[in-house]
Amino acid sequence: MSKFTRSDFEIENLGPAEFTSPLQSLRHEARADFISDDKHRVLFDHSLEKIQATMENGAEPVTIERSGPREKLFFKPSQTICAVVTCGGLCPGLNDVIRGLVMTLNYSYGVRTIYGIPYGYEGFIDRYGHSIRNLTPDFVSNLHTDGGSVLGSSRGPQSKKEMVDKLVQLKVNVLFVIGGDGTLRGAQEIVAEVSSRNLKISVIGIPKTIDNDLEYMDKSFGFETAFAEAVRAVRCAHSEAKGYPNGVGLVKLMGRDSGFIAAFAAIADNSVNYVLIPEVPFNLEGKNGLLKCLENRLSGRGHAVVVVAEGAGQHLMQNDPSAKDASGNAKFGDIGPFLKKQIETHFKAIGKEINIKYIDPSYVIRSVPASPQDAIYCLRLAQNAVHAAMAGKTNMVVGRWHGHHVNLPISVVTVRRRKVSPQGDLWLTVLEATGQPAEFK
Amino acid sequence: MSKFTRSDFEIENLGPAEFTSPLQSLRHEARADFISDDKHRVLFDHSLEKIQATMENGAEPVTIERSGPREKLFFKPSQTICAVVTCGGLCPGLNDVIRGLVMTLNYSYGVRTIYGIPYGYEGFIDRYGHSIRNLTPDFVSNLHTDGGSVLGSSRGPQSKKEMVDKLVQLKVNVLFVIGGDGTLRGAQEIVAEVSSRNLKISVIGIPKTIDNDLEYMDKSFGFETAFAEAVRAVRCAHSEAKGYPNGVGLVKLMGRDSGFIAAFAAIADNSVNYVLIPEVPFNLEGKNGLLKCLENRLSGRGHAVVVVAEGAGQHLMQNDPSAKDASGNAKFGDIGPFLKKQIETHFKAIGKEINIKYIDPSYVIRSVPASPQDAIYCLRLAQNAVHAAMAGKTNMVVGRWHGHHVNLPISVVTVRRRKVSPQGDLWLTVLEATGQPAEFK
Amino acid sequence: MSKFTRSDFEIENLGPAEFTSPLQSLRHEARADFISDDKHRVLFDHSLEKIQATMENGAEPVTIERSGPREKLFFKPSQTICAVVTCGGLCPGLNDVIRGLVMTLNYSYGVRTIYGIPYGYEGFIDRYGHSIRNLTPDFVSNLHTDGGSVLGSSRGPQSKKEMVDKLVQLKVNVLFVIGGDGTLRGAQEIVAEVSSRNLKISVIGIPKTIDNDLEYMDKSFGFETAFAEAVRAVRCAHSEAKGYPNGVGLVKLMGRDSGFIAAFAAIADNSVNYVLIPEVPFNLEGKNGLLKCLENRLSGRGHAVVVVAEGAGQHLMQNDPSAKDASGNAKFGDIGPFLKKQIETHFKAIGKEINIKYIDPSYVIRSVPASPQDAIYCLRLAQNAVHAAMAGKTNMVVGRWHGHHVNLPISVVTVRRRKVSPQGDLWLTVLEATGQPAEFK
Amino acid sequence: MSKFTRSDFEIENLGPAEFTSPLQSLRHEARADFISDDKHRVLFDHSLEKIQATMENGAEPVTIERSGPREKLFFKPSQTICAVVTCGGLCPGLNDVIRGLVMTLNYSYGVRTIYGIPYGYEGFIDRYGHSIRNLTPDFVSNLHTDGGSVLGSSRGPQSKKEMVDKLVQLKVNVLFVIGGDGTLRGAQEIVAEVSSRNLKISVIGIPKTIDNDLEYMDKSFGFETAFAEAVRAVRCAHSEAKGYPNGVGLVKLMGRDSGFIAAFAAIADNSVNYVLIPEVPFNLEGKNGLLKCLENRLSGRGHAVVVVAEGAGQHLMQNDPSAKDASGNAKFGDIGPFLKKQIETHFKAIGKEINIKYIDPSYVIRSVPASPQDAIYCLRLAQNAVHAAMAGKTNMVVGRWHGHHVNLPISVVTVRRRKVSPQGDLWLTVLEATGQPAEFK
Repeated sequence: MSKFTRSDFEIENLGPAEFTSPLQSLRHEARADFISDDKHRVLFDHSLEKIQATMENGAEPVTIERSGPREKLFFKPSQTICAVVTCGGLCPGLNDVIRGLVMTLNYSYGVRTIYGIPYGYEGFIDRYGHSIRNLTPDFVSNLHTDGGSVLGSSRGPQSKKEMVDKLVQLKVNVLFVIGGDGTLRGAQEIVAEVSSRNLKISVIGIPKTIDNDLEYMDKSFGFETAFAEAVRAVRCAHSEAKGYPNGVGLVKLMGRDSGFIAAFAAIADNSVNYVLIPEVPFNLEGKNGLLKCLENRLSGRGHAVVVVAEGAGQHLMQNDPSAKDASGNAKFGDIGPFLKKQIETHFKAIGKEINIKYIDPSYVIRSVPASPQDAIYCLRLAQNAVHAAMAGKTNMVVGRWHGHHVNLPISVVTVRRRKVSPQGDLWLTVLEATGQPAEFK
Repeated sequence: MSKFTRSDFEIENLGPAEFTSPLQSLRHEARADFISDDKHRVLFDHSLEKIQATMENGAEPVTIERSGPREKLFFKPSQTICAVVTCGGLCPGLNDVIRGLVMTLNYSYGVRTIYGIPYGYEGFIDRYGHSIRNLTPDFVSNLHTDGGSVLGSSRGPQSKKEMVDKLVQLKVNVLFVIGGDGTLRGAQEIVAEVSSRNLKISVIGIPKTIDNDLEYMDKSFGFETAFAEAVRAVRCAHSEAKGYPNGVGLVKLMGRDSGFIAAFAAIADNSVNYVLIPEVPFNLEGKNGLLKCLENRLSGRGHAVVVVAEGAGQHLMQNDPSAKDASGNAKFGDIGPFLKKQIETHFKAIGKEINIKYIDPSYVIRSVPASPQDAIYCLRLAQNAVHAAMAGKTNMVVGRWHGHHVNLPISVVTVRRRKVSPQGDLWLTVLEATGQPAEFK
Repeated sequence: MSKFTRSDFEIENLGPAEFTSPLQSLRHEARADFISDDKHRVLFDHSLEKIQATMENGAEPVTIERSGPREKLFFKPSQTICAVVTCGGLCPGLNDVIRGLVMTLNYSYGVRTIYGIPYGYEGFIDRYGHSIRNLTPDFVSNLHTDGGSVLGSSRGPQSKKEMVDKLVQLKVNVLFVIGGDGTLRGAQEIVAEVSSRNLKISVIGIPKTIDNDLEYMDKSFGFETAFAEAVRAVRCAHSEAKGYPNGVGLVKLMGRDSGFIAAFAAIADNSVNYVLIPEVPFNLEGKNGLLKCLENRLSGRGHAVVVVAEGAGQHLMQNDPSAKDASGNAKFGDIGPFLKKQIETHFKAIGKEINIKYIDPSYVIRSVPASPQDAIYCLRLAQNAVHAAMAGKTNMVVGRWHGHHVNLPISVVTVRRRKVSPQGDLWLTVLEATGQPAEFK
Repeated sequence: MSKFTRSDFEIENLGPAEFTSPLQSLRHEARADFISDDKHRVLFDHSLEKIQATMENGAEPVTIERSGPREKLFFKPSQTICAVVTCGGLCPGLNDVIRGLVMTLNYSYGVRTIYGIPYGYEGFIDRYGHSIRNLTPDFVSNLHTDGGSVLGSSRGPQSKKEMVDKLVQLKVNVLFVIGGDGTLRGAQEIVAEVSSRNLKISVIGIPKTIDNDLEYMDKSFGFETAFAEAVRAVRCAHSEAKGYPNGVGLVKLMGRDSGFIAAFAAIADNSVNYVLIPEVPFNLEGKNGLLKCLENRLSGRGHAVVVVAEGAGQHLMQNDPSAKDASGNAKFGDIGPFLKKQIETHFKAIGKEINIKYIDPSYVIRSVPASPQDAIYCLRLAQNAVHAAMAGKTNMVVGRWHGHHVNLPISVVTVRRRKVSPQGDLWLTVLEATGQPAEFK
C-alpha cells in the first residue's frame, strides 16, 4: 500500500463552490459540522509502524478525503440537471442506488431534473434507439423491492465523443455512473472529453462489483446480498450430499478473479469441506490433491461439499487464451462441469460409486433485491455521491475505508483488483472452518 | 376415470382389528366419531351426470375410503415395531413426514421402537454397510427446519427377499415407504413377498413426487414449496431479461413427464411469456413457431422470459432412446442448453443482437425446507399413514382427493402419471396469463 | 348444508349475452370448450348417502355453476368500462387480485378503461376528496411484490345512492368489489340500487377474509400467506420458551370468530402445546383447566407454547357488549394481555417462577406480499371474476368448492361464517399434534 | 476517546504459553504468521491529528491487541476442559457462537470436553436443578438454523463463589461467557474470585447486545439480523399507513438506551417519516412538535410512518423511577401505546379522523436465526475467543475495531454504552432520508 502519496488521493474539483447548501439549516439545527476536504481526513494505512516510519522520514501519512455534505456547492440545485447510468452485470442494490440518488437530489437538494440513461452507455447513443426517461421520486419510490436495474444495463464501451455530445444536448451538469472497472475507465474517458471541451460536468462513480474485488474499499454494495443468496445453494448442496451414499455436492459460484463470494458463502454455512478460489491454485492429482482428499473424506464421513469459484483452476483446463467476452475480459473455461467430470472419472477409476450433484446458481445470486444492510449501504453511497457532485467534485468514486465513507479518485480504485490473500485472516478462517489443507498437492 | 369399480379401491387388511385405540378417550372427549371404512367414503367422480348415469344403470358410484383413526387396531401399540424408509429424489417435506410419523407413533399411539432405514432400499441390505438408527421424538424434533432427508435416500430396486429378511430380523410390524412410482412398485413387491411368507407386516406408502404427477391425488407433498422456490429463478430471469437490450431470460425447471412446476411457477409470477411443457409439443420453426414468436415479442417489448420443463421438446433433440438413468427412466436430452443454442443461432442468423441468460436452479428447488402449508400437509399424511398402519391396512398409500384425506391402493396410484391437460383449467390459465399461442407452429 | 336448493345457487344475469368472446380463437386452437352455466356444474354436497337420499326423493342434487370464460359476452369489451374497489382490512393478495383483474381485462378481453376507486367505498363519495385513478397494465405490473392494497381501503358502509350516482357518472359497466362480509352486503345494496334504476351494471365480488371464515369456499385468498407469516411468531415463541427456565411463549393471532389461523399456524410448526380458538371454549381453573395443564407441562418439560386466537376466551373477560368497532362488529376484550396476566398471577400464587413472553404479530401477518401459491389463487379468482363480469353475471362472488372454481350468489356466502368444527378433521389434527385435552375443565 | 492509555488495553495472561499450537502446520503450509500480542496491534484512534498530537507529546498512540491464533498455548489442548454459558436476552447468532466455539475447540485444537452450562449463570448453581450437558460437534452441527440459545439463558447475577466452586468441581480450564453488560460484570467477578483462589481458569467474553450499543466495537453480533427483521415490521407499517385515509403506522422497536435498531430499520426501508430514539429528546407539542409535524404530513401526503425506540420519550411519561427489571435496569414506561394514545387524542381534538396502526414486533426480532453475514461474524468471534483462551488470556472479550478483530479488556467495553450521536453520520443520514426536523419543538 505504501506506493501512494497524498496527492494520489486528491479529488478533482470543477471550480470554486459558491452556493450555500440547502442542508445548512438542517445541520445547523443538529449542531453538526459540514465535512471539510482537509480537516476530516481518514488515514489510508493504519498500521502504527508504517505511520511512525513515515513520520520519522518527515513525511505526512497518507490520508483520504471523507465523504459527506459540503457547506458550499458548485452547482445551484434548482438549476442542476443530473443523469444516472448503470453499466455492466446486474448486482443487488442497483435500484437502491438509483432510488437513493433521486431521493437525495430531490428532497435534500431540490434538484428537479434527473435523467435515467437506458441500457448503460448505449443509452447515450441515438442509433440504439433507447428512450431516456425522467426519474422522479414517485417513479423510484418502490424500486427497492425489485432486483435488477430499472434503467437496464449493457456491456462494453461507447464513443466518448458521442456520449459527451448527448450530455451537452441534455444540458446535464452531473453524471452518476454505476458500474465496475471497465465502466469506470469509460467514466475516465468521459471526464477527459469533458475536460478537453472545457465543460463543467461532474462525473461521479458508484463502484459496482458483485465479486467484492475493489481495492481500497471495505466492501462493494450488493456483495453481502449476493453471498447470502449463494448460501442457499450451498445448503442445498449439503442436503444433496447427505441425501445419498457417497454424496458429493458441487457448487460453482461467481468470482472470476477473486474468491470472496465462495469464501464467504462457505464459512457462513460452515458445512463446506473444500473451497477452491482463483487466488489459491490447486492440484487434482497427488497424494494431497483434491481428488485424494475427497476420497479420504468420503471414506471417513460418507459425504462432501465442494465450492468452486468460476475463476478457480483455470490452469487445469485448456482454454483458448485469445477468447474474450463482451466486456473484453478473457473467456474462461467452465470449471464446474470440468470438475464434475474429473471427480466422476476418478471415482469410476477406483471403482467407488458416488452420487455427485452439481449446482450452478448463476445469475440468481445477482438478481435478488438488496438485503436491508446492503440497502443502507447503497443509500449512504448515493447520498455521498450527491454531496460530492453538488460540491463540484469529479473523476471520483464514493467508497468506504476502515468504516468511514470516503471520496476516492477513479484512478486509485481501478489500479488493480482486490483478491483474497492466501495468508490473510479470511482465508485462514476458511482453512480452519473447512479443515481443508492449505495446499492440494 | 370411469374404468374403476369400487373393488379397485378396496384396501387390503392384515386381519381383524381387535385392540382398542388409545385415541378412544381423546375422540370421546371431543365427541368425534372414528372414521369407518364403509360409512365415510368419498365420491371418486363428482360429476353429477356420471353419477346419475351410474345409478340409472343400477350401479353404485365408486367411492374411496377415508383416511383417519380407526376405533380398533390390528397392532398392539406397545408391542409394535415400525420402520421408515425414504427413496428416490429429494423433495421438500421428507423430514416433515419422518417427523410426523415418529411424533404420531410415539405420542398418539405409544409406539416406542421406530427404525430409520438409511439410504433408501439399500439400507435393508447388509452389504452396503449402512447403519440403521433409532428414531426418537428428540431426534426428529427439529428436522423440519432442514431440507433433504435425514435418513438419506437412494435410487433403484433391491431384492425383495433380502429386504423382507431384514424386516423379519428386525421384527418390524409396519414399514412406511416414502417414495415415487418406482419406490411404490418396490413396496408392492415387498407386500407380495410378505404375503407369500404369510407374515403380518403392514406396508404403507406416502407417495412422493416433486412433479405433482400423481393421479388421483389433489397434490403431492413438497410440490408447493418446490414451485415457490422455482419462482425465485423466474423472477431472476425477468430481472435479467429487463436488464439488457433484447434480454431473454430462459429458465429450465423440473418436470420430466408433467409440466406442473413450470406452469405454476410461470403464473405465480405472471411475468413469463412462454411456457413449454412435455404435454404440449411445440415447434421452433414456422411462422407461429417459438423462434418467430420470440422475435416478435423482442421487437415489440424488448425482452422476454421463457420457462421450459426438462421433459419438454424432447422430439426436437436426437436422443439415444436406449439410455436409462439410475431409476430406469429414459435418459433425456438437456433441453435447456439446446434451446439456448437454438435461440442464439436464430437471432444470429437474422442479425439481431440479443442478451440471453440461462438459469437452471436444478436441485435447489427440491432441497429447501417445506413451507408451512406443505408442513401441515406432510403432518396430516403422516398421521393418516400411522392410523392406517395401526389398523392393519397394507399395500396402500395415503392421499387426498377432492379435499378429503383418503386411503388408496398402491395399484391405483401407479397406473399412470398425472399430466397437465392441454384443454384443462390450469393450462388455459397459463395461456391467458402469458398470452402465448396454444400451438407454436 | 341440506337447506339449500338448486335455485339458491342460481346466478343473476344482466341480460342475454350476444357478443363473441375474444377468447374464441385461443380456446378453439387449444380445442377447449367454453364453460357452460348448465353443463359443467359442481356437486354442492358430495356425500354419497345424501346424494342417494336426494335422488330417492325424486329431487336433483344441488349443484353449483362453474367459473370460467363464457362463449358469449354481455358487454362489448372495447366499450366496457370497469372499476375496482378494495374494502375492509388489508389481506395478502389484494394487489395480486387488482393486478390480475387489470391484466385479464386488458390482455384477454381488450378492455381499456379501468378505474381504481381509492380507499374503499369512501372513494365513491366526492366529499372525502379522494382521487380516482386509471389502472393500466404498466401501473399494476409490479404490484405483487408489495403488501397492502395500492388502492387503499376503508371500513364501513356508504350511501348506496351516492355510490351508484358515481358509477353512473363514470359510465362504469362492471364493478369489482374486493372485501369481506360487510363489504359484500354493501355490494348487495349497490346491486339493489342498480336494479331499481334499471341499470345494466354488473357487480362481482372477490371475497376477502384473512380468517378463512367464508362458508362454501375451500379457502380464502391470503390465508395461506397469513398463517405462514404467523408461523414466524410461533417459532419465536418457541425459541423464547426454550430460552429461559419455565419459559412460556404466548402468541395472540388473528381470528375473531374462527380459529383457522391459530390452528394452522400451530400444526405447521408442531411446537405448540395449547391452541385456544373461539369455537372451543376453555376454562382457566379446574383440575384440567388451562392453568393446571400449563403447570403440569412446565413441571414435566420446562417450557410451553400457547397460541390464542383473538376471539377466544371472550367469556372469561368482562366486556362491554354494546361496544362496536368501525365495521360494526362487537368490540372484543384483548385476550392476549388478559391471559398473560392470568398466567402470571397463577404461578405467582403457587410460588413458581416462570418466564412468560407475549408476542402479538398483529398487522404484520396481513401486510406481507402474497406467497406464490396465494398469488396463483388470486390470479385465478381475478380471471374468473372478469369472465363472469363480461358474461353479464352480477350479484355474485367467485370462489372455489371441492377444488373447482365456482360462481356463488353473494347471498349464499354471507349467510354465516365458517368455523373450525370441534369434531372435524382439522381440530382433531390439532389435538393429536399438540397433545392438549379436548376440553380444559 | 483520549482518556485511554495503552495500559488500559493490556490483556491479562494466566501465565507463560509453552505448548505448541496444533495450527502450526496449517499456518506453516499457508505461509502465514501467527498473530503476536505486540507486533500486530491496531490503532485505537485513527484521526491523524490526534496521532500527531500524541506523538508530538512524546507519547505512543494507543493501540489494541489483535485477535487470532498464537504460536504458543498456555493450555495443552488434549487436556483442556471448557465450558460455555449464555446469559441475558436472546439475540440472533447465539447458537452460531456456541457452534463456532465447539467446532473450533474440537477440530482446530482437539479439545474433547466442552460443557454447556444451562440457563445462564443459574446453570452453575445446583439448587436450580438444571442439567449440564456435553457439547459435541454432532450436537451443534445444525444449531444455526434455529433461533434462540440451545443452552437457554437467564437474567441476573449469581454468587461468584458458588460459580467458581462449580468450575473447580468440573475441572474447567476455560469459561466462555456470552452476554451483555451485566453478564460481563459477572464475568469480572468470576475472574476476581478465580484470581483470589490462585486458579488458572481463563474467562473469555463474547459480548452480546442486540442494541449494538457496545463501545469500542464496530458492531455487535446479531444486530444486523435483528434490524433486518425489524424492517419487516416497518414495511408492514408502511402498507398499513398507505392502506387507509390518513393512515399512520407506528412501530416500536427495541433500543432502551441506544436507537441503532430504530435508525437502521428506518433508513433500510426508506419509507419512514419520523424516527424517535433515546439519544434525541423530542416534544409532542409546539409548532414544530411531533404532533404538529404529523398533522402537516397527513395534510400533505395522507399517510405517515413513525418508528420509536423503546427508550425514547421517557421524559414524557410519568414513570416510577425506583422500578427495576430482572436485570436491574430501570423499568421504562411503554412509549408505544403512550404515543398511540397521544396521537389519537391530538387528532380527535382537532377533529381529523385518522387510522393509526400500532405494531410491536417485540421478541420476534431477536429470536430469528442469524443472517449469513452475522453467521460469519459469530464464527470469527468464536474462533478468536478460542484462540485467546488457548493462549491463556483472560478477563477479556473478543471484538472488532475499525475492521480488525481485536482482544479488549472487559473493563474497557463495560465503561459505558455506545449511543447514536445526534451530530454523527448515522443520525444525519436518518435526518436526510426521512426529512424530519433535527428537533421537534
